[in-house]
Amino acid sequence: MNQTVTFGEVLMRLSPEGNKKFIQSNRLEFYFGGTEVNVAISIANFGGKVRHVSSISNDFIGDTAISYLRKFGVSTSSIVRSKRPLGIYFLEVGAVMRPSSISYNRSHSSFSEIKPEMVDWDKSLKHCTWFHWTGITPALCEGGYLTLKEGLKLAQKMGVEVSVDPTYRSGLWKYGTDARETLSDLLNYSTIFIGGINEMNEILGTDYNYSNEDFIEASKQLLKEFPTIKKTFDKIRTPINASWHKIRSRMWNGNEFRETKDLDITHIVDRIGTGDAFAGGLIYGLQNFDDYKAMEFGAAACALKHTYEGDVNFSNVDEVMNILGGNTSGRFNR
Amino acid sequence: MNQTVTFGEVLMRLSPEGNKKFIQSNRLEFYFGGTEVNVAISIANFGGKVRHVSSISNDFIGDTAISYLRKFGVSTSSIVRSKRPLGIYFLEVGAVMRPSSISYNRSHSSFSEIKPEMVDWDKSLKHCTWFHWTGITPALCEGGYLTLKEGLKLAQKMGVEVSVDPTYRSGLWKYGTDARETLSDLLNYSTIFIGGINEMNEILGTDYNYSNEDFIEASKQLLKEFPTIKKTFDKIRTPINASWHKIRSRMWNGNEFRETKDLDITHIVDRIGTGDAFAGGLIYGLQNFDDYKAMEFGAAACALKHTYEGDVNFSNVDEVMNILGGNTSGRFNR
Amino acid sequence: MNQTVTFGEVLMRLSPEGNKKFIQSNRLEFYFGGTEVNVAISIANFGGKVRHVSSISNDFIGDTAISYLRKFGVSTSSIVRSKRPLGIYFLEVGAVMRPSSISYNRSHSSFSEIKPEMVDWDKSLKHCTWFHWTGITPALCEGGYLTLKEGLKLAQKMGVEVSVDPTYRSGLWKYGTDARETLSDLLNYSTIFIGGINEMNEILGTDYNYSNEDFIEASKQLLKEFPTIKKTFDKIRTPINASWHKIRSRMWNGNEFRETKDLDITHIVDRIGTGDAFAGGLIYGLQNFDDYKAMEFGAAACALKHTYEGDVNFSNVDEVMNILGGNTSGRFNR
Amino acid sequence: MNQTVTFGEVLMRLSPEGNKKFIQSNRLEFYFGGTEVNVAISIANFGGKVRHVSSISNDFIGDTAISYLRKFGVSTSSIVRSKRPLGIYFLEVGAVMRPSSISYNRSHSSFSEIKPEMVDWDKSLKHCTWFHWTGITPALCEGGYLTLKEGLKLAQKMGVEVSVDPTYRSGLWKYGTDARETLSDLLNYSTIFIGGINEMNEILGTDYNYSNEDFIEASKQLLKEFPTIKKTFDKIRTPINASWHKIRSRMWNGNEFRETKDLDITHIVDRIGTGDAFAGGLIYGLQNFDDYKAMEFGAAACALKHTYEGDVNFSNVDEVMNILGGNTSGRFNR
Amino acid sequence: MNQTVTFGEVLMRLSPEGNKKFIQSNRLEFYFGGTEVNVAISIANFGGKVRHVSSISNDFIGDTAISYLRKFGVSTSSIVRSKRPLGIYFLEVGAVMRPSSISYNRSHSSFSEIKPEMVDWDKSLKHCTWFHWTGITPALCEGGYLTLKEGLKLAQKMGVEVSVDPTYRSGLWKYGTDARETLSDLLNYSTIFIGGINEMNEILGTDYNYSNEDFIEASKQLLKEFPTIKKTFDKIRTPINASWHKIRSRMWNGNEFRETKDLDITHIVDRIGTGDAFAGGLIYGLQNFDDYKAMEFGAAACALKHTYEGDVNFSNVDEVMNILGGNTSGRFNR
Amino acid sequence: MNQTVTFGEVLMRLSPEGNKKFIQSNRLEFYFGGTEVNVAISIANFGGKVRHVSSISNDFIGDTAISYLRKFGVSTSSIVRSKRPLGIYFLEVGAVMRPSSISYNRSHSSFSEIKPEMVDWDKSLKHCTWFHWTGITPALCEGGYLTLKEGLKLAQKMGVEVSVDPTYRSGLWKYGTDARETLSDLLNYSTIFIGGINEMNEILGTDYNYSNEDFIEASKQLLKEFPTIKKTFDKIRTPINASWHKIRSRMWNGNEFRETKDLDITHIVDRIGTGDAFAGGLIYGLQNFDDYKAMEFGAAACALKHTYEGDVNFSNVDEVMNILGGNTSGRFNR
Repeated sequence: MNQTVTFGEVLMRLSPEGNKKFIQSNRLEFYFGGTEVNVAISIANFGGKVRHVSSISNDFIGDTAISYLRKFGVSTSSIVRSKRPLGIYFLEVGAVMRPSSISYNRSHSSFSEIKPEMVDWDKSLKHCTWFHWTGITPALCEGGYLTLKEGLKLAQKMGVEVSVDPTYRSGLWKYGTDARETLSDLLNYSTIFIGGINEMNEILGTDYNYSNEDFIEASKQLLKEFPTIKKTFDKIRTPINASWHKIRSRMWNGNEFRETKDLDITHIVDRIGTGDAFAGGLIYGLQNFDDYKAMEFGAAACALKHTYEGDVNFSNVDEVMNILGGNTSGRFNR
Repeated sequence: MNQTVTFGEVLMRLSPEGNKKFIQSNRLEFYFGGTEVNVAISIANFGGKVRHVSSISNDFIGDTAISYLRKFGVSTSSIVRSKRPLGIYFLEVGAVMRPSSISYNRSHSSFSEIKPEMVDWDKSLKHCTWFHWTGITPALCEGGYLTLKEGLKLAQKMGVEVSVDPTYRSGLWKYGTDARETLSDLLNYSTIFIGGINEMNEILGTDYNYSNEDFIEASKQLLKEFPTIKKTFDKIRTPINASWHKIRSRMWNGNEFRETKDLDITHIVDRIGTGDAFAGGLIYGLQNFDDYKAMEFGAAACALKHTYEGDVNFSNVDEVMNILGGNTSGRFNR
Repeated sequence: MNQTVTFGEVLMRLSPEGNKKFIQSNRLEFYFGGTEVNVAISIANFGGKVRHVSSISNDFIGDTAISYLRKFGVSTSSIVRSKRPLGIYFLEVGAVMRPSSISYNRSHSSFSEIKPEMVDWDKSLKHCTWFHWTGITPALCEGGYLTLKEGLKLAQKMGVEVSVDPTYRSGLWKYGTDARETLSDLLNYSTIFIGGINEMNEILGTDYNYSNEDFIEASKQLLKEFPTIKKTFDKIRTPINASWHKIRSRMWNGNEFRETKDLDITHIVDRIGTGDAFAGGLIYGLQNFDDYKAMEFGAAACALKHTYEGDVNFSNVDEVMNILGGNTSGRFNR
Repeated sequence: MNQTVTFGEVLMRLSPEGNKKFIQSNRLEFYFGGTEVNVAISIANFGGKVRHVSSISNDFIGDTAISYLRKFGVSTSSIVRSKRPLGIYFLEVGAVMRPSSISYNRSHSSFSEIKPEMVDWDKSLKHCTWFHWTGITPALCEGGYLTLKEGLKLAQKMGVEVSVDPTYRSGLWKYGTDARETLSDLLNYSTIFIGGINEMNEILGTDYNYSNEDFIEASKQLLKEFPTIKKTFDKIRTPINASWHKIRSRMWNGNEFRETKDLDITHIVDRIGTGDAFAGGLIYGLQNFDDYKAMEFGAAACALKHTYEGDVNFSNVDEVMNILGGNTSGRFNR
Repeated sequence: MNQTVTFGEVLMRLSPEGNKKFIQSNRLEFYFGGTEVNVAISIANFGGKVRHVSSISNDFIGDTAISYLRKFGVSTSSIVRSKRPLGIYFLEVGAVMRPSSISYNRSHSSFSEIKPEMVDWDKSLKHCTWFHWTGITPALCEGGYLTLKEGLKLAQKMGVEVSVDPTYRSGLWKYGTDARETLSDLLNYSTIFIGGINEMNEILGTDYNYSNEDFIEASKQLLKEFPTIKKTFDKIRTPINASWHKIRSRMWNGNEFRETKDLDITHIVDRIGTGDAFAGGLIYGLQNFDDYKAMEFGAAACALKHTYEGDVNFSNVDEVMNILGGNTSGRFNR
Repeated sequence: MNQTVTFGEVLMRLSPEGNKKFIQSNRLEFYFGGTEVNVAISIANFGGKVRHVSSISNDFIGDTAISYLRKFGVSTSSIVRSKRPLGIYFLEVGAVMRPSSISYNRSHSSFSEIKPEMVDWDKSLKHCTWFHWTGITPALCEGGYLTLKEGLKLAQKMGVEVSVDPTYRSGLWKYGTDARETLSDLLNYSTIFIGGINEMNEILGTDYNYSNEDFIEASKQLLKEFPTIKKTFDKIRTPINASWHKIRSRMWNGNEFRETKDLDITHIVDRIGTGDAFAGGLIYGLQNFDDYKAMEFGAAACALKHTYEGDVNFSNVDEVMNILGGNTSGRFNR
């Protein structure tokens, strides 16, 4: 069986119930998330073997975060503990034309002091066949970048598949590095690109548009400039409003372009972590199916995630396959 | 005033709040339900007089179930108590393309040991003018079948109206009887058939399709083979997804076919018990209005049920009439 | 900066969670509201300076109501305390074709005994530049009418802008006055009319229809009969059902008719207080922008209110401007 | 079997969870209560047959109150409906040295307009063998006094037992009657006096102290002045603080003085309705046991009530007998 | 490090919040427990390595139970899945003189069909150094008895320590075996006896009393009749009432009697699982400390468990040591 | 009227409901606190005029914190906003022998970057008659120390009363200053010392014990070494366990020693902020009563705080006076 390893910050998510704002509530729900850990749990829920590598606070909040990963069967044996507090994000869930609001408390978190010497990559990547990283990690802090690079070097040496979701967010990248340069450096260790036109333009310095034609051209250029990369996968979100989205996906695997039909998510329960659900589904799919079915699996996983509260995609393989089999009407059998 | 009697298992329903899964929650809401008791409560909420006959656990859970029926004014004087636990079902409420999930714990419940000698039908049917049963009861256990048959025999002798909702579920019927044979036996004591093409095909051994033409043909054949049956009523659900359905109904009363327009339920709150709400509304309607208005009343009651949490239709006559009167836009007067 | 003064009853709102009915719950959420106080809080949330004048119960419920106003920065220094209890309304939130239900307990509330001599209008209107009143206040009790009239007289003498939302509800007006006569009396102290065809017809004794042409004609007649009034603003609600509305607005400012496009509110969270959000947004808009932008601001504020639980519009200026800027798809930036 | 009838106001109780204050919460729990209805439900929970007579609001709050009585098996067939709102009390539960706080909203409630002609006493007292009233009812309003008196007259004529809990509260009695005179008038129709030295002193115009000697003297004088009264029962509360009380009881039945030992309630869950639990237990006891055991039963019922949230004593006969049998250590058997 | 293996039923626990009864609530909290699994989790929380062997339902409830064990780091790799539902117990938490009430739904649970051939003991006991069982398992069903015996035989062959908590409950043992005979059979494979005078009398057929002298005598006789047993440990509970207990422990290890002082638990949060917390603490203690300190550790762990909701002892080694170090006043350091 | 000014960090407090641990919950309650702000709110609840000076995050969490202060009537006009997140503390509430646990996330909070130039002390201290500070502020960061010193200098120049609660916590003071030296520096601007033997020993470098004699001696020495200080007030806590404490206080005002009797808090609801409640009560007392009554008022306020959830003392003057008047049994009047 594949053994996937993910690396990145674990965040505590705090939000009032339903659509409430903090100012009108005194009660919160909490979950744990973070883009890479969301991918890890999603794969574990599909039955995959996963280990997550991170630095987590050495207090009862950190204990709770670790128990949260364990609950889903994600291995926590490579997690290091820190005296700094766990990163947090506060979320007010929007509705209709009201956007959700997020406020972060992560700049001095337990993960922010990660250093290459803190992670034993040899042990962490033991038996690993797939490594997944995102652009959030090198954006957070130099230690994140350098530690990740060490892991990627070893992964490349081991010949394992390396997927990347570059998720470029300009609000991060504050510690004095150039986003494009840093991401480019790390892309050279990667084999599967999970991202859209925005990310490609950011990395290539181009301005392709959203058409399929441009997606193919951009993908070709990316595969040329980063020869380790073999395939690109893109997820396209069409928002009606904050409560109603459509999702489809498309791919270029070096010789074939394919795209899926829109899945219509008429009543969004929670939009957070849906991109990670796509990545998690896609990775599990690529480990078990052909490229197109993997992408379909990822898109259906992404759509299903919109129906769960929290950052995590709880769906299992049967539930995703049910969508692929055409049951998008939520019919249930007793 | 009519006195309706229902007979069947009372179930405890346990589900996490909102759309949560058990794995992400440690808090549940509970209600009581069961297809026949849902019908009973629905009729009681319309102001009808109803008695429910069942076997309920002799513990504080059973006490709570009985107080739940009493709360709605359903007579519990014919309920017997059992040393076995009350039947339970666990529910995870789906959304959009995610179906709801149900897990039952009922095979050794208090109802599962019902025996004809445990029910005093003479007393239970005193003043009764209408008896309602469903196909769930004979499917659960032989005692259910035999006890029901005793009640039906007496009801027929008393000349009361007998409505049946055969709700065929292949997952039940495990104790070694033939579903078709058993249902056919019991249909001979019944006068009103509340069911669709699937049930008719199952009973008649036919394969009619969903068209109105076939519905009429199937109904005619049913009335021929079961001469006590005088009318058939069908409710048609068109799901967009788990959160959005349309509902309409149609009937054959021996000489006239009628159908209602679709009611559009754009934001489903809870889908459980909506078929029972149709039956409850229809029965109350037939007791008070003509056939077509009764069916319209049932369809509107069914639509309204989608807006209440739990198994029970809370709507009263005015609220259903408001829909029949054309106010489907939820306008409210202060 | 403008200083707005509002006057009217503060109500406690009690409702079960989500779409539950009282009969199926033993838990409530409470907020405070009342049409004028909703306007006050809305303006305060936009950063405006507001004082609310009222009579509130002298118990821990009244203390809580006052702290609720203070929380949003509304000045409570002109509030008087009463031995009578605070007015209450109970709310069951509907869904789809099920209307919301309201039951009031306000006829002998702390506000119901308001008398002109209880309010020190000189002090209450100090520095005031804008006075807002609604037709609810004179409808509740004679003391409400007379006290309001004293305030309006002073406001007119001070030359401040006076906006009125006549919200005619026939269920009120029980203490023996003629609604039309009383409202007409008070309109003579007012300068901005926030209301639709229904209110105009009620006041003018006419029967204009909902067309733009009739709105213009009715407005012209209103401005003629009440020469202090300079502008009329109307908000038009198109309900699909209780969970899905569309909102637009139109205006006549004496020489120009304008209307906005529909805003589509596909998943209503809470419909209460949305008219007040329009008034609050419009007043803040008129204090800061031109007529059309003020109306657009009001309509967007109204639409946003549908996404918040409770009576209050929590949105700030940036959030409303975001809608005016065309982002109605709820996109959020991290 | 005995058929007990109670008469009095039903109140909705609203309180924040646990020990919270309204100002720090936005969530409430609600129950229904009222001193006479508490007695009624308590007797019903012991298996007694009870009917409650009252006037209740004709809205969904009133419907919920009625379903609450029905849930416990209390007959609601003699309840009349009113356009006025149901009476309410708000409660902040204290702890240790912090007293609980109560604020009432009942002066214009549905019960406040009760009139003799509204109650059909012949029908309400059909099959009645025991009538229970309290001093709250004549204190609330003249209609309460007069309606009660009609019922008492009929009860006396029927020769049924009449118990009274005079609970004198000086804060009530505002409508212009003399408490002592009114209570004395009604005591002439009563046979069992449930009250302490305070109530006796108030009625007799004496100043007996709390000693057993004085209790006996006062009882003797009471039985002399009100010859219909045959027995007096008193419940003595020794508070350590708001969270810790001791309870015992004593009696004079015309020829014998007895008292029970203190029951130590070290961790009070809810103190409301504990006096009513004593009355309910005592009445059920007098209907089934000798005087002393009835008093013991009442005291144990009272003690148990302190362990339930809400106004109602949920304990059944076995649970009270368990205390009488000496198990005050809360041992449980699986 | 020691590897402990436990074997027994996993139960879902369902209880209303706080001290509420089911009849007054519609909201439950759920946890998972069962005497052996409580011991397993307790040891895992001390940092011990533990595997739990059981049969769990193959539905989302079973998935949730497994994730619950994983959350605490208990290995679930030897758990088998069953088509039957998970066992359940309903709990109403008492207070003061009100006992807690429990109702079980376990007689046809997933565990009830356990058979020796379903458990791969060779794999389950791999690396095992300590096996723990209780008298609940052989009491539930014959399959439980026989499967346990297979495990014990192998454990004895492997020479591992075997602790037993016989917890005799006469309400169980219904499938037609003799409790004394069956327990005696299994005690021959055991080395550490965790139980009191009741259990010893039941097994030995004696009637020793609770004195230390009798405890020593009974222990001696037990060690004589069951020569594999080397030590006995007893936990003594002195209840003031359901909310206030005292706990101490005593031991006979073949040549020395010792006892600890009472720990005073003045405000019990949850009494369930406290015996299991003693066993868990004792086992961890015996694996790491001398006999007396192990017993002290167990008693302190037991006391601490009374302060946690649910079946599980959440305390870690530091927290227990803090009590042993004399800090029983709950002082905390920031 | 006095105008009190407080200065210090505002913290968000996050804790699971009741006695739950984070690992067993997914729901939190939040309040705001911080030692100085607790004092401010306490004084405001007594009717005092208070302004709090702080630096608060410029996000929706900061908005909520500010609205929290405003809710109690504390002036927030001198609060500055910061790009850093608000400080947080996570709390697990203990019980009996289980201590509460706290984990802080404050080292890089909005307050941690406070600088003297950020606070306009002239404006902040306008009309101020009393300044209160604690030892937490100079312990947190150098900016806290220097900013506070600026405020103290101005306060001294203005001749206002300056109270100090030095609360020495060795876990703070990490930025490289000497606690004793820094505190001593700031004590020279102070007039009222609210602290015990520990703090005096820390500041004086002595080792007085807890006896009254030593308290008097230490106080004399303190008043000698810090001649601006005129009085010392000490609050003595005697914990039985985490759920049961006793509280008394003592004072030396330069010529008189007095002490109060113990107040017995048998059932603690929340222990956080009780020291601040003493300080708040004492300050309000000193502003309105003589020294001894002020101390009594402070001790009663402190005791009452143990009965409220959250950091804040909600009690008003009447409620504290009720305790001083001898009603410590929580009796309530209706």
